[in-house]
Amino acid sequence: MNKEQRHLSVTAIENGTVIDHIPANNVFKVLRILDLENNNNMVLIGDNLDSKKYGKKCIIKVSNTYFDANEINKISLVATSATFIEINNFEVVTKKQIEVPDQIHTIVKCFNPNCITNVESVPSWFTVVDKEQMRLLCHYCEKITSKNNIVFR
Amino acid sequence: MNKEQRHLSVTAIENGTVIDHIPANNVFKVLRILDLENNNNMVLIGDNLDSKKYGKKCIIKVSNTYFDANEINKISLVATSATFIEINNFEVVTKKQIEVPDQIHTIVKCFNPNCITNVESVPSWFTVVDKEQMRLLCHYCEKITSKNNIVFR
Repeated sequence: MNKEQRHLSVTAIENGTVIDHIPANNVFKVLRILDLENNNNMVLIGDNLDSKKYGKKCIIKVSNTYFDANEINKISLVATSATFIEINNFEVVTKKQIEVPDQIHTIVKCFNPNCITNVESVPSWFTVVDKEQMRLLCHYCEKITSKNNIVFR
Repeated sequence: MNKEQRHLSVTAIENGTVIDHIPANNVFKVLRILDLENNNNMVLIGDNLDSKKYGKKCIIKVSNTYFDANEINKISLVATSATFIEINNFEVVTKKQIEVPDQIHTIVKCFNPNCITNVESVPSWFTVVDKEQMRLLCHYCEKITSKNNIVFR
């Protein structure tokens, strides 16, 4: 094994998506949000890789799988810095930016334990009232779930 | 990128542990059992890799981390075929076999919903009465949790 291979932590995929610049410690949240634990294609994951820009970062590469804007935007909750890169025949085809969505459905738990979404089987529904600080206004109880309180269902 | 690199899905680590031959779909269970989601070292994961022997397999490589027999044996619940390979300076130092332990504490939920371990905060405790079929006898309610019913806490 040559020096170059040793430093290439996770190799290229032929076709699929590379999700780069995921902050350290958030890779498993991204895997869960994108349901990659149940993906039957090859999935390569590098956690806590050295990064000049971020100190530590994570990367995910998924073969033969592409994500739509709705799925990509869900990642803004845990990894705003992430980039989605689509690969075709080992070449970069497009890069997609993450945008914080206006509404968030189902994936986040309301912070209020008495909210109907926590006591009955009602899916959560938030309006993002502050996209910088990630403050989520519950459609039902009108309480705010803030960035530090975000728990995924 | 040369052909060899393209086919080398997850590169070598300098020091640490390689867990090879994990059955497809079980890699995330192994990560949870070994608490690798909270490991601060570099973790490389390949899920659904092509394997001549198994059709599909998973592999985990963790830098600067080694596991004791107790931790290795927990993996017998989800990946009896797995091998633990210790790496030092890019070379294989030892290979450790998984053995099914005699007792299993905490990590598995008792199948009986009325068991004290499910209604109070008592950690589960099983004796493995059949190591081939993975039949677990609960120390408290004496019910059997069998392979197909194993759920991790």
